[in-house]
Amino acid sequence: MSQRETLIAATPAVNDAGMDAAMKGWFSEVSDEMWPGQAMSLKVEEVLFRGKSDFQDVMVFQSATYGKVLVLDGVIQCTERDEFSYQEMIAHLPLCSLHHEPKKVLVVGGGDGGVLREITRHRSVERLDIAEIDGVVIETAKKYFPGMSLGFDDPRVRVHVTDGIKWVGDAEAESYDAIIVDSSDPVGPAAVLFERDFFEKIHRALKPGGVVCTQGECVWLHAELIKDVLEMCKSIFVGGSVQYGFTTIPTYPSGQIGFVMCSKPDAAGKTVDFATPARPPPIAPEGSKLKPLRYYNAGVHAAAFVLPEFARAAVEPFVVKGTGQK
Amino acid sequence: MSQRETLIAATPAVNDAGMDAAMKGWFSEVSDEMWPGQAMSLKVEEVLFRGKSDFQDVMVFQSATYGKVLVLDGVIQCTERDEFSYQEMIAHLPLCSLHHEPKKVLVVGGGDGGVLREITRHRSVERLDIAEIDGVVIETAKKYFPGMSLGFDDPRVRVHVTDGIKWVGDAEAESYDAIIVDSSDPVGPAAVLFERDFFEKIHRALKPGGVVCTQGECVWLHAELIKDVLEMCKSIFVGGSVQYGFTTIPTYPSGQIGFVMCSKPDAAGKTVDFATPARPPPIAPEGSKLKPLRYYNAGVHAAAFVLPEFARAAVEPFVVKGTGQK
Repeated sequence: MSQRETLIAATPAVNDAGMDAAMKGWFSEVSDEMWPGQAMSLKVEEVLFRGKSDFQDVMVFQSATYGKVLVLDGVIQCTERDEFSYQEMIAHLPLCSLHHEPKKVLVVGGGDGGVLREITRHRSVERLDIAEIDGVVIETAKKYFPGMSLGFDDPRVRVHVTDGIKWVGDAEAESYDAIIVDSSDPVGPAAVLFERDFFEKIHRALKPGGVVCTQGECVWLHAELIKDVLEMCKSIFVGGSVQYGFTTIPTYPSGQIGFVMCSKPDAAGKTVDFATPARPPPIAPEGSKLKPLRYYNAGVHAAAFVLPEFARAAVEPFVVKGTGQK
Repeated sequence: MSQRETLIAATPAVNDAGMDAAMKGWFSEVSDEMWPGQAMSLKVEEVLFRGKSDFQDVMVFQSATYGKVLVLDGVIQCTERDEFSYQEMIAHLPLCSLHHEPKKVLVVGGGDGGVLREITRHRSVERLDIAEIDGVVIETAKKYFPGMSLGFDDPRVRVHVTDGIKWVGDAEAESYDAIIVDSSDPVGPAAVLFERDFFEKIHRALKPGGVVCTQGECVWLHAELIKDVLEMCKSIFVGGSVQYGFTTIPTYPSGQIGFVMCSKPDAAGKTVDFATPARPPPIAPEGSKLKPLRYYNAGVHAAAFVLPEFARAAVEPFVVKGTGQK
C-alpha cells in the first residue's frame, strides 16, 4: 500500500461516518481515537450530499439549528453558524501579527474556502495560493456553502488541487510571507500535516520574518500532541518564535480549537510575537461582499494566547515567545 | 399549583433525563428549550445513583473518560474531569476582584460543594454560608464526589438546606462581602434565580463595595437572556458595576459558560472593575487538602472579560465597567 492508502485505512471506524450512530435523525461525532467517550450531536433536517472522494467520506447536511454542516470522515469541519470563529482566527492571528504587510500567502487544505475568504480581507495580499488535496471538497463547498466558498472568487486566488506537502516542497525557497495550514485531525489524510517533514518544508518556503499557523487541536483533549508539535517546531524554527493560541467554537470537540504558530527571524533577527497584534484588524477591499468580522478583534487576539493554568503549565516549556518588532 | 410545582412541570421532557436518548450506553444532554438541535453525549460505564428529590431528578454515573458525572433533570452539572474550570472561575473572578478582603460570603445553590472548596482557599473568609434548596444534592455529592464536597469540611462553612431566595431575603441588610449564585439553568427550580426579585434581595444583602457573581449562561446560545439579565442588573446596581466574563468547559453546552458580576459602590463611591484582578490568586490555608489551582490565574482572569466581537457588540451596551480602587 502507498502511504496514502495506509492513512485512509487508519481512519477510525465512526459508525457509518457518525450518521444515525446516535439518536435517529441526529448526527453524532464519535472518535475513539481523537475524543473517546464524548460526542457532539446535531439534529439533522436533511442530508444534502453524501459521497466518497478519492480521499475521504464527504457529507453535507442541513441541521436544525446550525445551518448547513460539512462533515469529512465523520468529523464536523464547519457549520454555517459558527465557522467564522475558526476561519477568522486561523487567518488573522498570524496575518495581524506580521511585522510587514503580507503579499504572498499559501493555504494548505482549507478546501471549503473560509480561510481564503478571511485572507482576502487583507488588501496587501497580491497572491493567494491554495493547495487542497481533495477537489470534491472544493466543489461541495461551492455548491452548498456560498458564504465560505466566496473566498474562491477573489482574483488574487490561485487554486491547486494537489498534495499540500508536495506543493510546499516544490515551492521556491523563501517565497511566502505566510502559510496557513487548515487541516483536519491527524488521523486520515491530514496525519502527515502534523509531521516533521512537512514543517521542515514549510520552514524552507517561508521568507525571513514569515509565519506559519496550523490547526493545533484542543488543550482539553490533546495536550500531549500539542506539546509534541510545539517541541518539533522549536527544533525547526531555530532562532524564531513558536506559540500556541486558541479560539472557542461550539461544534469542535470540547468547544474549542487551538493554533500552533511559528515565525522565522527577519533580517534584523526580530521574531513575530504572535500574542501582540502588530497591525489593526483587516478592512476588506471596497466593493467586497464580505461581512464585518464577527469573532476577531485586537482584544480577542491577545486573549487567545492566555491559557488556563493547566494548559499554560503544559505548553510553556515548549513555547518560544517572539521579540516583536521593536 | 404552587410556583415551584409549575416550574418543575415546565422542565423540558428530556427523554428519561437524557439516559439512552442517544446511543445505547451513552448519556445525551438534550434540551429543546435551552440548546435546541445540539447535544453533548458522554459514554456511560455505570449508573451509580438515580433518584427523585423533592425538586428534581438526580443522577450520578461513572463515565468512560470524564470521571463521575452529576446530572440534574437531564442536565450535566459537573464532571470530575473539568469541574475545576467552572468552580474556580465563579469563585475567584469575584473574590480576586474585590477591593477589600472578603470576610463573609454566601453561596446560593452549589450543593455539590465545589464552589465552597474554592472559596475556602481565601484565608480572609471568616464565615461561609451556603443556601442549597436540595439536601439530596448535598448528600449525593458527599457520597460520590469527595473532590468537590470536601468544601463542606471547612469549619467556616455553615450549611442551610433552604430556599436561596428566602435566605437572601431574610439576611441582614448589607451583611455579605460576596454572594455567589451557583445555579442550574433558568428552567426548573433555578428559574427564579434569574429574576428581578432575587437580584433586588441580593443587592440589599450586600455590603457597600460588595459583589455578586451568578452563573450567566453562554454567549453562543443565550445572548438575549444575557442581555436581559445585564439590563436588569444595571437597573438594580445603580452607581455600581455590571460585567460579563466567561470560562471554557467542555461538558457545558457549546463548551463554555459565563458569569454576570455586579458590585455596589463602596463608601468612597468606587466600584469593582471585575476585569482587573485586585489581589493575587488565593493560597489555601496551611494543612489544607486542596490541590493547586488548575484553571484560574491572573492572566486568565483578565482574559475572561474579552469577548468575541459578536458577543462584545451584543453585551457592551448593558455593561457598566467598574472604576477600580484607585
